[in-house]
Amino acid sequence: MFMHNKKLMYTVRVAEPNPGLATLMLEQFGGPQGELAAAMRYFTQALADEDPGRKDMLLDIATEELSHLEVIGSIVSMLNRGVKGELAEGALEEADLYMSLNDGGESHTTSILYGGAPALVNSAGVPWTAAYIDSIGDPACDLRSNIAAESRAKIVYERLINVTDDAGIKDALTFLMTREIAHQKSFEKALYAMQPNFPAGKLPGHPDFADKYYSLSQGDGEARGPWNEGEQWEYVDDRAEQAAVDGGDGTAQVVLSADELETVEALAARTASDPQANPVTGADLGAGPGAGKTTTLVE
Amino acid sequence: MFMHNKKLMYTVRVAEPNPGLATLMLEQFGGPQGELAAAMRYFTQALADEDPGRKDMLLDIATEELSHLEVIGSIVSMLNRGVKGELAEGALEEADLYMSLNDGGESHTTSILYGGAPALVNSAGVPWTAAYIDSIGDPACDLRSNIAAESRAKIVYERLINVTDDAGIKDALTFLMTREIAHQKSFEKALYAMQPNFPAGKLPGHPDFADKYYSLSQGDGEARGPWNEGEQWEYVDDRAEQAAVDGGDGTAQVVLSADELETVEALAARTASDPQANPVTGADLGAGPGAGKTTTLVE
Amino acid sequence: MFMHNKKLMYTVRVAEPNPGLATLMLEQFGGPQGELAAAMRYFTQALADEDPGRKDMLLDIATEELSHLEVIGSIVSMLNRGVKGELAEGALEEADLYMSLNDGGESHTTSILYGGAPALVNSAGVPWTAAYIDSIGDPACDLRSNIAAESRAKIVYERLINVTDDAGIKDALTFLMTREIAHQKSFEKALYAMQPNFPAGKLPGHPDFADKYYSLSQGDGEARGPWNEGEQWEYVDDRAEQAAVDGGDGTAQVVLSADELETVEALAARTASDPQANPVTGADLGAGPGAGKTTTLVE
Amino acid sequence: MFMHNKKLMYTVRVAEPNPGLATLMLEQFGGPQGELAAAMRYFTQALADEDPGRKDMLLDIATEELSHLEVIGSIVSMLNRGVKGELAEGALEEADLYMSLNDGGESHTTSILYGGAPALVNSAGVPWTAAYIDSIGDPACDLRSNIAAESRAKIVYERLINVTDDAGIKDALTFLMTREIAHQKSFEKALYAMQPNFPAGKLPGHPDFADKYYSLSQGDGEARGPWNEGEQWEYVDDRAEQAAVDGGDGTAQVVLSADELETVEALAARTASDPQANPVTGADLGAGPGAGKTTTLVE
Amino acid sequence: MFMHNKKLMYTVRVAEPNPGLATLMLEQFGGPQGELAAAMRYFTQALADEDPGRKDMLLDIATEELSHLEVIGSIVSMLNRGVKGELAEGALEEADLYMSLNDGGESHTTSILYGGAPALVNSAGVPWTAAYIDSIGDPACDLRSNIAAESRAKIVYERLINVTDDAGIKDALTFLMTREIAHQKSFEKALYAMQPNFPAGKLPGHPDFADKYYSLSQGDGEARGPWNEGEQWEYVDDRAEQAAVDGGDGTAQVVLSADELETVEALAARTASDPQANPVTGADLGAGPGAGKTTTLVE
Amino acid sequence: MFMHNKKLMYTVRVAEPNPGLATLMLEQFGGPQGELAAAMRYFTQALADEDPGRKDMLLDIATEELSHLEVIGSIVSMLNRGVKGELAEGALEEADLYMSLNDGGESHTTSILYGGAPALVNSAGVPWTAAYIDSIGDPACDLRSNIAAESRAKIVYERLINVTDDAGIKDALTFLMTREIAHQKSFEKALYAMQPNFPAGKLPGHPDFADKYYSLSQGDGEARGPWNEGEQWEYVDDRAEQAAVDGGDGTAQVVLSADELETVEALAARTASDPQANPVTGADLGAGPGAGKTTTLVE
Repeated sequence: MFMHNKKLMYTVRVAEPNPGLATLMLEQFGGPQGELAAAMRYFTQALADEDPGRKDMLLDIATEELSHLEVIGSIVSMLNRGVKGELAEGALEEADLYMSLNDGGESHTTSILYGGAPALVNSAGVPWTAAYIDSIGDPACDLRSNIAAESRAKIVYERLINVTDDAGIKDALTFLMTREIAHQKSFEKALYAMQPNFPAGKLPGHPDFADKYYSLSQGDGEARGPWNEGEQWEYVDDRAEQAAVDGGDGTAQVVLSADELETVEALAARTASDPQANPVTGADLGAGPGAGKTTTLVE
Repeated sequence: MFMHNKKLMYTVRVAEPNPGLATLMLEQFGGPQGELAAAMRYFTQALADEDPGRKDMLLDIATEELSHLEVIGSIVSMLNRGVKGELAEGALEEADLYMSLNDGGESHTTSILYGGAPALVNSAGVPWTAAYIDSIGDPACDLRSNIAAESRAKIVYERLINVTDDAGIKDALTFLMTREIAHQKSFEKALYAMQPNFPAGKLPGHPDFADKYYSLSQGDGEARGPWNEGEQWEYVDDRAEQAAVDGGDGTAQVVLSADELETVEALAARTASDPQANPVTGADLGAGPGAGKTTTLVE
Repeated sequence: MFMHNKKLMYTVRVAEPNPGLATLMLEQFGGPQGELAAAMRYFTQALADEDPGRKDMLLDIATEELSHLEVIGSIVSMLNRGVKGELAEGALEEADLYMSLNDGGESHTTSILYGGAPALVNSAGVPWTAAYIDSIGDPACDLRSNIAAESRAKIVYERLINVTDDAGIKDALTFLMTREIAHQKSFEKALYAMQPNFPAGKLPGHPDFADKYYSLSQGDGEARGPWNEGEQWEYVDDRAEQAAVDGGDGTAQVVLSADELETVEALAARTASDPQANPVTGADLGAGPGAGKTTTLVE
Repeated sequence: MFMHNKKLMYTVRVAEPNPGLATLMLEQFGGPQGELAAAMRYFTQALADEDPGRKDMLLDIATEELSHLEVIGSIVSMLNRGVKGELAEGALEEADLYMSLNDGGESHTTSILYGGAPALVNSAGVPWTAAYIDSIGDPACDLRSNIAAESRAKIVYERLINVTDDAGIKDALTFLMTREIAHQKSFEKALYAMQPNFPAGKLPGHPDFADKYYSLSQGDGEARGPWNEGEQWEYVDDRAEQAAVDGGDGTAQVVLSADELETVEALAARTASDPQANPVTGADLGAGPGAGKTTTLVE
Repeated sequence: MFMHNKKLMYTVRVAEPNPGLATLMLEQFGGPQGELAAAMRYFTQALADEDPGRKDMLLDIATEELSHLEVIGSIVSMLNRGVKGELAEGALEEADLYMSLNDGGESHTTSILYGGAPALVNSAGVPWTAAYIDSIGDPACDLRSNIAAESRAKIVYERLINVTDDAGIKDALTFLMTREIAHQKSFEKALYAMQPNFPAGKLPGHPDFADKYYSLSQGDGEARGPWNEGEQWEYVDDRAEQAAVDGGDGTAQVVLSADELETVEALAARTASDPQANPVTGADLGAGPGAGKTTTLVE
Repeated sequence: MFMHNKKLMYTVRVAEPNPGLATLMLEQFGGPQGELAAAMRYFTQALADEDPGRKDMLLDIATEELSHLEVIGSIVSMLNRGVKGELAEGALEEADLYMSLNDGGESHTTSILYGGAPALVNSAGVPWTAAYIDSIGDPACDLRSNIAAESRAKIVYERLINVTDDAGIKDALTFLMTREIAHQKSFEKALYAMQPNFPAGKLPGHPDFADKYYSLSQGDGEARGPWNEGEQWEYVDDRAEQAAVDGGDGTAQVVLSADELETVEALAARTASDPQANPVTGADLGAGPGAGKTTTLVE
């Protein structure tokens, strides 16, 4: 179960309201790389993990991400505290209020729709969706997903740090960014403490296809590197060898029953196109007087 | 630019139609771990990457994923080829057709809405969304995201292989699964060919917080392991040291102008709750005759 | 900040795995009336509320809802624990596994995509979205929204209780259902402890329109009741008095500048339809031999 | 069935085009608290309600909300009528047109994508979704949801009134806002004309948990009020009494069959993490020359 | 403004409840080709159309589609009327109720979440979204979109007719299907009453590219027909002539300022991959004992 | 299978970076009328089409749209190349970077979230969704949908051309726009090469309803034209003839079993509203001291 302490995990000191900056911060509140996504990612994984060590770690970090969510949400709330009052109380002339709503980012939406309260949307106003969470219930995959997610969150914090000179916000963002680094380290340790972890799952790859690199993009700019060169790789750039690599004819087939076949043939016949036709079309009808019809339409 | 060869990358041989199985296969066509997500993930990364080697690799693999999309889509198409004809031609009695629509998965939706054609939805009928793509324009992050994505796709293919005994489908799925392993290897090589890559970006973490592990989930089941134990870690399980870790008071503050302050105070006063009240509520009004009102309502 | 206790708020005892039932339970995990929606609803409100009493209450209940999320997620996890292992280990024949995936609800998706782990989707497999949260940053509104949300959650739990005879699950669901009732009572008290709270906000309604009831749906089945009858209401059922109730002409107008007017007129002229035409259309072209064209198409 | 009268329910007089303001108005056209949401909310409820009085009321108000949708959409259309012509006719220099597209809100999107026509998106350009509708087919719940929805719509109109000084728009918005107040009153009457209505549904709460208030958020800022104080409440702030409130051990359990157990154990063993390991990780590999590896990697 | 008549546009007579069939019918209630999409498509177009004839037609048909929405919603409501009562009243044994919820389609979700009331979701339970509406505010385009939409709605009704033998439902569906045909005819007439209408808009195509057909998919199965053959077409199947058709070098370039260039080069250098490296990777670390490392990791 | 040529289909020459313009271009990258939607629309249709000619055409054009996607994505990438470097390298003062992020459109989101890389979102930042694709697996419908889609894409390109004076971008956009015209022509030819194609499908309309035009919107502004006038049409404007057009009573009915009926009646009784009540409501409780209660609340 969860408990809550009124103290934030990190003190939030904002120099002055700025609703435009607030909407950027929403990226880490209700955005794809934000703290809700992180918390829910780890929390849902924890519920199904059979390994007690990982389960404990996932719960520790999920709980910390919820605490981060509160920190970034508090920053948003402080940055919007001015416009929240002005709009609710009708405290400014209409034109001034209109301008204060349009001074950056999606502040128009966060003011009109959410009244300045932090909402679980990203910096474009798009509502958070669980489609952001890529957990699939396999620890070797989920840990890799977590590692990647932490690195992404680190970068989004870095970008946010780069665009504000409010010292208090910078401090809090630096704390949050640092923790993403630490979490990535934990997930890395957990991944490699499970051996083997590559490839994930139980089924091995097919040996005919595991070491091939298909050079499907060709022309000026092709390059070689460890990802397609070296003893691990067979480099296939002959176009003919890239198609139907199973040695078959490269078609798609299904065995239909006689009834099914008859029905499909009826469908095909009913909707067949006539390659010999040169029909008048809607485009011909609408192309205007000078365009010349393809053919004469006879009753 | 892209070109197309009529041959599939892998020949598709399906033993018999099965619309229920078809809807499972949609997971790798229009699902979050599917081939469109993979192709678009790498393709969009390629367009902005400044490194010629990675750019080439991303285009190679993006193009291969599009070719995989065609393979899995062809499987779906073959599995649905029976119901497609039956429904379009009205070839069965209504009750038989109704039953054939309800024999598994989301076949009712794929038949009624899509007529048996492969649609970019997952196995629950949820339309594909670019929210599945987590690229953020930083190569150290994006490569990690790709590594994780490939491992996830490998597992979903493994699950699909486990639930069908159609040999031709199993073959094609095994090919597709194997290629995900190979792609993961390429992305791993590319990540580590960029040094340093951890932490991503330029800003270093704050030394006070980089090595701490906050044990926020406590009670029976706590565990230690390399993710929170060892010389890299300082383990913090004292609840008091987990809050306001900056040494501040753990509150959120903002400096308001005098006008802003006045407005916020007006808002607060207008919407204040009275802690001494014991008001009659809507629940009281609706609780029924025997429930007893909290207080008498006097005009 | 948040902390976590390894103990659940309510012990979960599940009699046997049942992935079909698990997908129903997802409604309260990742569905619109579920616990994540509840937790996030109150948590985000708390961050911006200026009233210390309400803020405390919102944090108390938000934290409890997170604890409920853990309970319902644990039920899902237990119900899926069988299929999770079977699918990951490939422990059954393909046909048996296929059937076990299709025994109810969206178990095919929760197995293939999520491997049996609880996912933030509803019982139809639709990912959770913050569009479910209707908070707008006004306490008189948000409390009403919370009251309504709690009553809805109560009913969804009641429905779930009605469809399972697993005693342990019934117990846990009854606990969760009961807490929604208690939360509704708290929100009711908080709403009426703020006086006045109706109508929300500061602007009064326009007296000409505040007491009218427009009977816009007419015919057999019209009814009167306290919602449209009594001293509070003026009942308007004359169709003529229902349109343009401001006494104007009921049109929409805007004052354009001369340049704008000229441009709009050019647009109107360019895209004007000719009411006198009887054009051949695409439908005519495609209606088949016996259909007779509207007119002869002359070059 | 529905019929339409060419007259608007309220005459729309807009002083001059303003695409930036138009995008704010979209909040009540295609936003979560807007008129389509209201109309569809009541209309869908009406179709399934067994009570003739409520059914009639729901149809009356649904029809009025459709008429409101037309009013607010007409405002949007008038505000965009200038840019609509300019863009369609290419009537301005490119740079001027570019600037006119970027003068506020999401006017760039409403111009490029929708050509100035009103679209069912909110003020951030997010398409309307039925996820906004929270009806669940229980009248005691749905009426509460309607009450809350009307209060929210009232506030969003109030905010829009506060940000425009166009007298004609202000008039129309005031009408619309006033009607939301009237609708709330109707829904309130209908709710309390159904007795009892609290708690919704048939199942009573469990007496052990109905009157408890769990103080889960603790520390500076805790408060008491009628929502957690008084004879209706038992206040539980002892952390130990907040966990496993059923008196159990607070774990989650399921009874597995022998086969299931064996499979789960195989899964657990295969994916176990080694708590004694101190593995080299990907982060170690990428940490750069000075970072020092955790351990030596031996072939 | 809208008005409502209690009579349906078409009488609905359902032979018996069938929640599985109800969920199929939802496709035309809250699905992409359904009546809400149709109504909103035409209604929003009407609000911005400058042509009085089209505007009137769009309002006529939009109003009819709303009336159709009521018919199809009433069918859903009747089909669910049994399960609605059983679930709300808890009238069956749990196991019986569970089974009645799982007898087809998404009836489990429509019962648990919506209580049997018609909801604006499609037959897979996906909430309706305005992303289904493709209007862009140009009449030549929007009419074509409407023509296509009506033809699609016709087919979905045909499929629904094919899967039910309930005579009353068949009747009502046939009426609805027929009206889609009639609407398509109206939109066709309106399109061709506006001359010219092809291509839409004002800007002509570039003559070098207007008549070319690029045969980008090659191999067995290539075909010729009026869409790529005849005097209107220049067929380009030489791969070399398909790339960089402007005669340029086919690259993407931008002129950067000196500062920008320096920054981009710094970025490129910082994130460069080393093509000569053969790095140990995470996959190597996780490949297990027998896998052989690429290289020795030396401290 | 797909292959890739490093050369773009059309050379991209951008005069200078402009992130605000970049976000407008996203409309044709990840927007509803953009190139991904086009490519996926035709590609998925091709996989299920039984006609070899159409299948070939669909693959040709799908492949070209993918090549267009690369062109428009490259334009976005070039326009963002400046801000990409500045943000990643932290190359500007915070305030300057903040301003560069807010100079138009959604550049704040594309910078913070995507780092300047092209993302599959539209110009408002909304992620691409397969809900944009309206294919239903019937060629007569899908071709009409394609015709409409091409005309829409043409117009969005025209609008983009109208708002930029960058000659290189204008060139590339003109190429892309022209190709949409050519594709529309191909789809028109293919539609009319299939005869008959109207109405789509096999079932004929009901003769009683096929030629009627219901004038449901009445009042000033009614108009006649070929869409509702002429020998093809019977114009119905008598309100009485517009309802229950089947001659029935216009109600919705279902035959319930005795058990079902009893249950529904129990539900109706339990949730009945009392039309004679004049209950005190929540609005009364919250209306403030001067508002006057409806009635006295008696214990």
